[in-house]
Amino acid sequence: MHILITNDDGVQSRGLLTLSQSLGGLADVTVFAPSHNWSAAGHNKTMHKPLRVDEVTLADGRAAFSSNGTPSDCVALATLGVVERAVDLVVSGINSGANLGQDITYSGTVAGAMEATIAGLPAVAVSLNCHDSEADFHPAAEAARVVVAIALELGLPRGVFLNVNVPPLQLEAIRSARLTRLGRRVYRDVLVRRLDPRGRPYYWIGGDPPSGEPDPDTDIWAVDAGFVSVTPVHMDMTAYTLLHGRETWETRLAEAFRAR
Amino acid sequence: MHILITNDDGVQSRGLLTLSQSLGGLADVTVFAPSHNWSAAGHNKTMHKPLRVDEVTLADGRAAFSSNGTPSDCVALATLGVVERAVDLVVSGINSGANLGQDITYSGTVAGAMEATIAGLPAVAVSLNCHDSEADFHPAAEAARVVVAIALELGLPRGVFLNVNVPPLQLEAIRSARLTRLGRRVYRDVLVRRLDPRGRPYYWIGGDPPSGEPDPDTDIWAVDAGFVSVTPVHMDMTAYTLLHGRETWETRLAEAFRAR
Repeated sequence: MHILITNDDGVQSRGLLTLSQSLGGLADVTVFAPSHNWSAAGHNKTMHKPLRVDEVTLADGRAAFSSNGTPSDCVALATLGVVERAVDLVVSGINSGANLGQDITYSGTVAGAMEATIAGLPAVAVSLNCHDSEADFHPAAEAARVVVAIALELGLPRGVFLNVNVPPLQLEAIRSARLTRLGRRVYRDVLVRRLDPRGRPYYWIGGDPPSGEPDPDTDIWAVDAGFVSVTPVHMDMTAYTLLHGRETWETRLAEAFRAR
Repeated sequence: MHILITNDDGVQSRGLLTLSQSLGGLADVTVFAPSHNWSAAGHNKTMHKPLRVDEVTLADGRAAFSSNGTPSDCVALATLGVVERAVDLVVSGINSGANLGQDITYSGTVAGAMEATIAGLPAVAVSLNCHDSEADFHPAAEAARVVVAIALELGLPRGVFLNVNVPPLQLEAIRSARLTRLGRRVYRDVLVRRLDPRGRPYYWIGGDPPSGEPDPDTDIWAVDAGFVSVTPVHMDMTAYTLLHGRETWETRLAEAFRAR
């Protein structure tokens, strides 16, 4: 069993180090991660510039690969041949900060899992609901090990990955784990306009952190309530509710295109 | 009625110009687009650097806004207050190149529509299935006008946007429009390894364009067959099939976390 580990905070981040040590108890691991921080990079793959690959040493002395590409690029480079041994599972994380609800479309951590899914590999993204860079990643790494072991045991349907979010608690304070759906984040972004020293305006997109729907089957609720949230995610974003009530739409589209 | 238009190919791209002229026949339009090309930027919002906004002039003499941010940033800047008039609908495009199947998670064009959806606005992403920079965008702009008019007439459920892909045909050769689901792209990426003049390796991620499932209800099929593909998309990527068969997973997770 061979697990590839990536992230978007960079190859030398503590979240990745702790995760790779924890998963080392389950399987052989290879670390292949970006050389710098790609937070909020979304799911992007580099097609217009060449990618470099370096061999680096982690803080605990183990060897790893890094690249100037994104988390998606690292997964592609590793699985397309830079890493010679076939990969059985990809784990991305541990991210500093949760990836919940529709925020996963922004997330570089989740993008690593998406790239693996598109390549036909099972994948797990892991995030800790805490932005403190001094956070203790050990409870989240232990939770990730438990979830990954179950995923290896039960398997994942093709095209589905797991998005795991862990509350910032010591292991004994974590209540349990719940299978959840993605909740809906409620944003309160505000525009902050300032003037630079030459009097020209510039803008920050700021505001309070998003709140979330309180529904007790969502990822947002579970993490707030002290559970590890495990959300099965697929790449098919089709809104089937509209598709199943399609007659009106199809009729109007057909009429309009006939009338041209 | 006030339509905001953005894209990811940059404010001076011909696809955006043609689209904004066409939609000008339906409503007042404001163009607010990136100053440079963000293709394959994914859905990212800029939080760690200040954003500039410039007033620019389009090739037909109309005024527009541009920013150093992504398509998502342009939508956020416009709707959070840089554009004073409230926006009723956001249209992103016309992209040079289709955005089909799971590729939409990569797409800056689609990211503009996602950002609008998160902000609670109806949105339409428009792409032309042609990478030729000399392509004629007029048929796609006319198709977009027809679809946007129907979206305004019928409304869109909250949280759902439309992903529109147009075949590279003259208007009279387009067969009609179809409401579709996202198909599954099949990738054949390959790794190309080269040596730089100093003998150091670098890599390109290359390979043939992806093929697609031939199912006749998919976006991939529709565009290949000469139809305008209109796919309703939502932000909820939960894999409900796994969630609905959750007992085994929940049992194993509960057991494992009890056993710690």
